[in-house]
Amino acid sequence: MSAAALQARRERAQQAARAKGVDALLVTPGADLRYLTGYDAPPLERLTCLVLPADGDPVLVVPALEEPAARAGPAADLPLRAWQETDDPVALTVSLLGNPGRVAVADQMWAEKVLALQAALPRARFVPGGLLLTPLRACKDAAEVEALSEAAAAIDEVHAQMGRWLRVGRTERDVAVDIERGILATGHERVDFVIVAGGPNGASPHHAVSDRVLRPADTVVVDIGGQMPTGYRSDSTRTYALGRPDPQAAEEYTVLQAAQQAAVAAVRPGLPAEQVDAAARDVIAAAGFGDLFVHRTGHGIGVETHEHPYLVAGNAEPLVPGMVFSVEPGIYRPGRHGARIEDIVVVTETGVAALNHRPRDLVEL
Amino acid sequence: MSAAALQARRERAQQAARAKGVDALLVTPGADLRYLTGYDAPPLERLTCLVLPADGDPVLVVPALEEPAARAGPAADLPLRAWQETDDPVALTVSLLGNPGRVAVADQMWAEKVLALQAALPRARFVPGGLLLTPLRACKDAAEVEALSEAAAAIDEVHAQMGRWLRVGRTERDVAVDIERGILATGHERVDFVIVAGGPNGASPHHAVSDRVLRPADTVVVDIGGQMPTGYRSDSTRTYALGRPDPQAAEEYTVLQAAQQAAVAAVRPGLPAEQVDAAARDVIAAAGFGDLFVHRTGHGIGVETHEHPYLVAGNAEPLVPGMVFSVEPGIYRPGRHGARIEDIVVVTETGVAALNHRPRDLVEL
Repeated sequence: MSAAALQARRERAQQAARAKGVDALLVTPGADLRYLTGYDAPPLERLTCLVLPADGDPVLVVPALEEPAARAGPAADLPLRAWQETDDPVALTVSLLGNPGRVAVADQMWAEKVLALQAALPRARFVPGGLLLTPLRACKDAAEVEALSEAAAAIDEVHAQMGRWLRVGRTERDVAVDIERGILATGHERVDFVIVAGGPNGASPHHAVSDRVLRPADTVVVDIGGQMPTGYRSDSTRTYALGRPDPQAAEEYTVLQAAQQAAVAAVRPGLPAEQVDAAARDVIAAAGFGDLFVHRTGHGIGVETHEHPYLVAGNAEPLVPGMVFSVEPGIYRPGRHGARIEDIVVVTETGVAALNHRPRDLVEL
Repeated sequence: MSAAALQARRERAQQAARAKGVDALLVTPGADLRYLTGYDAPPLERLTCLVLPADGDPVLVVPALEEPAARAGPAADLPLRAWQETDDPVALTVSLLGNPGRVAVADQMWAEKVLALQAALPRARFVPGGLLLTPLRACKDAAEVEALSEAAAAIDEVHAQMGRWLRVGRTERDVAVDIERGILATGHERVDFVIVAGGPNGASPHHAVSDRVLRPADTVVVDIGGQMPTGYRSDSTRTYALGRPDPQAAEEYTVLQAAQQAAVAAVRPGLPAEQVDAAARDVIAAAGFGDLFVHRTGHGIGVETHEHPYLVAGNAEPLVPGMVFSVEPGIYRPGRHGARIEDIVVVTETGVAALNHRPRDLVEL
């Protein structure tokens, strides 16, 4: 992101602060800090904290040790306040705030820092930073959609090689090692997660990998993702069959594919997020498999793999152009098998566009 | 760690809670949760939380999706309370607490969870979990010292191969790729960090790697560490010379080596932590380089790379047998070169033992 784009984000956060009656936003290392400054700071016990007042200039508080790293990156144009090993960084941070009534802290700030700031500002009311940043981060601009498209294309390339790696007689772990290399070879900077869930393991949605050997007729859920050098993430699931699958698994898969397609087709501006979940769930329930779809339909994705919006019953927030999220229903038959299909999609002005493009049927390898 | 050892840790945490007037400790995924339950849970927006009352049995609150993973590991013997996608996990957690006066939350719990719990328990006073867990985690038992010795031996093995990798004409990044493979090949499960800082880059203590090409007479700071399958970490620094170094760098190194040796030799039960820092700093200051030693002397290490105790001016807490920490003074001449020597040491009943054993002089490669 350009310095101007980062500054525009900070200004939007300041506007949101003014609109919500928040006097300042405090952001420690993590996805929010990277989003607002480009600085991918390490999460440390030593306090690094962006102080963004509702009005006025931001200041980045950094340990003196981290100052060269902070100055080397896109945060170099921010005013920095470095503190020495024996200084009190909480006191320094608070001294930049005046006498705030409402302070927002980054959603993932560590409790030890939250409690220290609360103790130093006993009269302030603390609110989650997501109040300001969630709506900003959830709506991607064109450059972000481009970055997420690149990430999706990279993970598609990994799925395209699955025929070489997924073989009867290999363990899930063997396959995962190949996938990890593939994730890095296709332009990702980091592997975020690799799920290879064969046969009965496929029935546990968050199974990672095991030493189970893949067998003929296994269906295998492969859910993989990584982080690109831009900081944006990929996340895509396909289910493969090692030869002709069990007829029950095949029947469920047909329903699942229809459900995933229905959910993607439902996406449009203004639709309550939970309606995307309902679109998938209705198809699966109508086929009699409702009890086997045990998780929400999707999650936003950006500089984190899981972020707002969440496509889940109870979330009535309307979809807005620029939102990017996963659509990933699954059907899980305990002790037998499971299947999931996951695409990342973007809400457009008129409807939806998928960023992943691999075939969605049950490919027999 | 055995189930009995984990239960003993929880009981010690409960004793500490009673001693400090804390009614319950709440622990979300991270090093504290792994320390208390063995469960290496992923940090997610979905709430996973160990509820450990000062009196009574612990309960692990988990998303239903994570229940199979939680039950597959060493936390399987804990009572689990799984919540479904549309349940309110904060309400569930609070319902397990009665009407607490003081609640401790894990030091690294996310702010969004801290603030949600505070809102649900408006009359409770929140304190950092470190109040209870820092003293426990800082004093390692025999099994933990053994795990940290294994980690130290593994990283020593990586340093032992540096002669093959650190060569004039290669970039820092080239060398770092070899080191990362080495860290994984010596039994680590994960690379935590790799610093290869050649020539003037060595003057920035937290420089990571760059595309700078190594040159004749460069001194190179190599600070590396990883996580073993036990969860315990390694962290060791050596400084290498590519042929005969600059005389100024050589002189500074001689002082540094004496300082590091003096600091290790000073370690004994009862000594205030800051005195270890002073022991190193006095030697460096006496030689006239005091301004070039810009960071504290060390940090505790265990299931996190940086944990208590910190060896820094102002920390008067007395050393106790079983504490394990780094002793890592450095001398940094901006624009020219830098050097650091780092060993992990354990406080014994009578003094100190180093866990790293590679030669500490300036090895000319």
